[in-house]
Amino acid sequence: MHAIYPGSFDPVTMGHIDIILRAAAQFDELTVAVLINHNKKGLFTIEERLDLLRESLKEYPEIKIESFSGLLIDYAAKKGEPVILRGLRAISDFENEMQLALANKNSNRNIETLFMVSNPKYSFLSSSLIREIAAFQGDVSNLVPPAVEKALRLKYKEGL
Amino acid sequence: MHAIYPGSFDPVTMGHIDIILRAAAQFDELTVAVLINHNKKGLFTIEERLDLLRESLKEYPEIKIESFSGLLIDYAAKKGEPVILRGLRAISDFENEMQLALANKNSNRNIETLFMVSNPKYSFLSSSLIREIAAFQGDVSNLVPPAVEKALRLKYKEGL
Amino acid sequence: MHAIYPGSFDPVTMGHIDIILRAAAQFDELTVAVLINHNKKGLFTIEERLDLLRESLKEYPEIKIESFSGLLIDYAAKKGEPVILRGLRAISDFENEMQLALANKNSNRNIETLFMVSNPKYSFLSSSLIREIAAFQGDVSNLVPPAVEKALRLKYKEGL
Amino acid sequence: MHAIYPGSFDPVTMGHIDIILRAAAQFDELTVAVLINHNKKGLFTIEERLDLLRESLKEYPEIKIESFSGLLIDYAAKKGEPVILRGLRAISDFENEMQLALANKNSNRNIETLFMVSNPKYSFLSSSLIREIAAFQGDVSNLVPPAVEKALRLKYKEGL
Amino acid sequence: MHAIYPGSFDPVTMGHIDIILRAAAQFDELTVAVLINHNKKGLFTIEERLDLLRESLKEYPEIKIESFSGLLIDYAAKKGEPVILRGLRAISDFENEMQLALANKNSNRNIETLFMVSNPKYSFLSSSLIREIAAFQGDVSNLVPPAVEKALRLKYKEGL
Amino acid sequence: MHAIYPGSFDPVTMGHIDIILRAAAQFDELTVAVLINHNKKGLFTIEERLDLLRESLKEYPEIKIESFSGLLIDYAAKKGEPVILRGLRAISDFENEMQLALANKNSNRNIETLFMVSNPKYSFLSSSLIREIAAFQGDVSNLVPPAVEKALRLKYKEGL
Repeated sequence: MHAIYPGSFDPVTMGHIDIILRAAAQFDELTVAVLINHNKKGLFTIEERLDLLRESLKEYPEIKIESFSGLLIDYAAKKGEPVILRGLRAISDFENEMQLALANKNSNRNIETLFMVSNPKYSFLSSSLIREIAAFQGDVSNLVPPAVEKALRLKYKEGL
Repeated sequence: MHAIYPGSFDPVTMGHIDIILRAAAQFDELTVAVLINHNKKGLFTIEERLDLLRESLKEYPEIKIESFSGLLIDYAAKKGEPVILRGLRAISDFENEMQLALANKNSNRNIETLFMVSNPKYSFLSSSLIREIAAFQGDVSNLVPPAVEKALRLKYKEGL
Repeated sequence: MHAIYPGSFDPVTMGHIDIILRAAAQFDELTVAVLINHNKKGLFTIEERLDLLRESLKEYPEIKIESFSGLLIDYAAKKGEPVILRGLRAISDFENEMQLALANKNSNRNIETLFMVSNPKYSFLSSSLIREIAAFQGDVSNLVPPAVEKALRLKYKEGL
Repeated sequence: MHAIYPGSFDPVTMGHIDIILRAAAQFDELTVAVLINHNKKGLFTIEERLDLLRESLKEYPEIKIESFSGLLIDYAAKKGEPVILRGLRAISDFENEMQLALANKNSNRNIETLFMVSNPKYSFLSSSLIREIAAFQGDVSNLVPPAVEKALRLKYKEGL
Repeated sequence: MHAIYPGSFDPVTMGHIDIILRAAAQFDELTVAVLINHNKKGLFTIEERLDLLRESLKEYPEIKIESFSGLLIDYAAKKGEPVILRGLRAISDFENEMQLALANKNSNRNIETLFMVSNPKYSFLSSSLIREIAAFQGDVSNLVPPAVEKALRLKYKEGL
Repeated sequence: MHAIYPGSFDPVTMGHIDIILRAAAQFDELTVAVLINHNKKGLFTIEERLDLLRESLKEYPEIKIESFSGLLIDYAAKKGEPVILRGLRAISDFENEMQLALANKNSNRNIETLFMVSNPKYSFLSSSLIREIAAFQGDVSNLVPPAVEKALRLKYKEGL
């Protein structure tokens, strides 16, 4: 069973890493897929996000790391209709995710979405929160992989 | 009993159509009211949205289709204080709608808001989801009326 | 347009009265319908609940007050398929009500449920809360009609 | 990848069947597991529930159908630590399920819970709703498999 | 500033202990108050619950431990109108707690309720979950204080 | 016990005032703290917001009114680690607030967040709703202090 775990990963957090490692232990094949969104300028470029994922997951070479653009459902169809894996942290996630899962199902009846509950330790965590804390030089060391922490420091130093 | 069903309708979806037809069967008079929001550029112009509503509802000439600007509560007062009708799809709708209903009630004690539950088939559906799917040439044929599907195709061809 | 407002009303609260009076101002005809539930012994008998409703609404003789047993949808069909009116106080109400509305719709496509938002003053109010406060001789004077307050005092004195 | 889909199934509904068939198409192995709860007398006996599942799924002999007692996590450990599959219909499900998933994870770090979103057509559906409608001779024909409809009719005739 | 932390504590969990210790660090005075509910037979007697609290908090003699019966608001009035402290774990807690806080405020305008967010580690934890796991000899060692774990073992051995 | 009540206050509403006065009655010291957000241009300048707070609370000179920039947690650390006070109106507030409280706790274990439930009269109220109503010359007289009403009238006259 092949699963793709899509997201913006701008940047990857320990909440994502937790889901990725738990999923890698269950699924035969796991692809982490970074969404290219041309309308929304992120903090990190797609190339940087892929590099941070690769660096953070370098001990798990069996996990594939890719980027894609366009509709998730079209990307999934091209990959042979794997399941889509999503993490659930909280109610607001849930409702949004439920609508996306149903919309995807409406477009392609063969593609299922499966959800995994976030570790409660990371239930408050999001990439946008990380960007906000880092912008004010707050401590994010227990919330992101070391490579991300270093990249954030450089990013905000550049900004000075 | 007269009801107005306000919204942006950018564009009208099958979820809206479902509420409109069910409401038309219950209320003596029904007005679909397109909100003119000068601060937010939509995909379709107000005139296009009205045309798409008229085309999609042409078999129901008893349903009035109008636009309005300013506060909904002022528009409703001018129309003789009909009830305001809103669709509920999900929790996130609910809370926002509840606050609007209470805010309207606070401004004019005579104007009530009534809610109707969306058909679960369309519970994941929103105009913004339609715009997003259409932007990537995804299939929206069972989610919008035929006139809207055609208009979306033209709109995104224009974009090329 | 005829609406029925069903419930247990064990006992009727100011939250119910608020919905009833606002609905009576909008609908051509309004029937308050007390559900007879043989499986659940209430605090007040069905006859007492009807009496308390009649006493509390005696200035509004145009509002009908009845009881019914069996499925709401069957009762509504016998009454000529009026709309069902329900109050919404909070999220937990919402989800339960949404499921009931969809279940009713599934059984009879002609019967619609409309929702009205509770006055926030009464958003914390339920018949079970009233019974609990009254059981400990707490003050419920601003939460129920005078007739109910008196009946609760007698009921709990009887219990001694 | 092996999944177990646990529940009370008192009785199995079309909502359950929808999840079961979609899961069977994705997982290498699927076991439907009926929880034996000695503290809660159900409408159907465990043996009847298993029979209704077997009859409703007889075209899918690859799907295993079993019962278990005690903690789900102990049952899952004995089965070789498959993933636990659960359906999500609504927010109230979500929160409860999230707590169960975390509690299970706390007991056995190797056992994951995966969630699948219910078909919105069945989002209002639960076994308890079925029992309630059937008790009043309401129509449940599009909500349960034919074998369950027949069993409910017999069950409530017995009751007369 | 004096706070009372009311609850059933049947039995006290690590989630309660976390709130109690964090509150003790902030408030000048803290009283843990066990509600005596004559209508609901618990697993532990009120005396046992008080003993388990005393044993679990013996290193913090400044924390008062008491029981009360009747309405919380009357108990609080007798104690000189301290604030009421409650823990919030999840949405379902929130709504129920919000209604209780408003009901208490309605009865006595001087008594405020303050909420503290549970440690996410314990966000899935409740006394009823503990009772359920312990009934099946599941492991609760990281979810309750040692004294409670021992008491649960004795309690369920007694049951044999 | 010292509490800080942070927010944007663009502008202060009766919902804020209600929380502030109730908190002032409970805490030994209360500081209202206006967040300076350089990325988001508000309707009122920070200086205007402080003036409107001072004018609205001039009968309560014991309440401190300040502004701060950067992370709330850093500001709180500089102020001697008071508790952070937040109002809760609705579920959507709740989840967001819960995440912020946990994020703050993660950064500084000594700083607690306490929540107070909004008066239900103001449960629909937010600064953004006020700005929207005022922009259309709607009536906000019972939703904001008199000084704010006057300032809004001037602000939108300037706009002409």
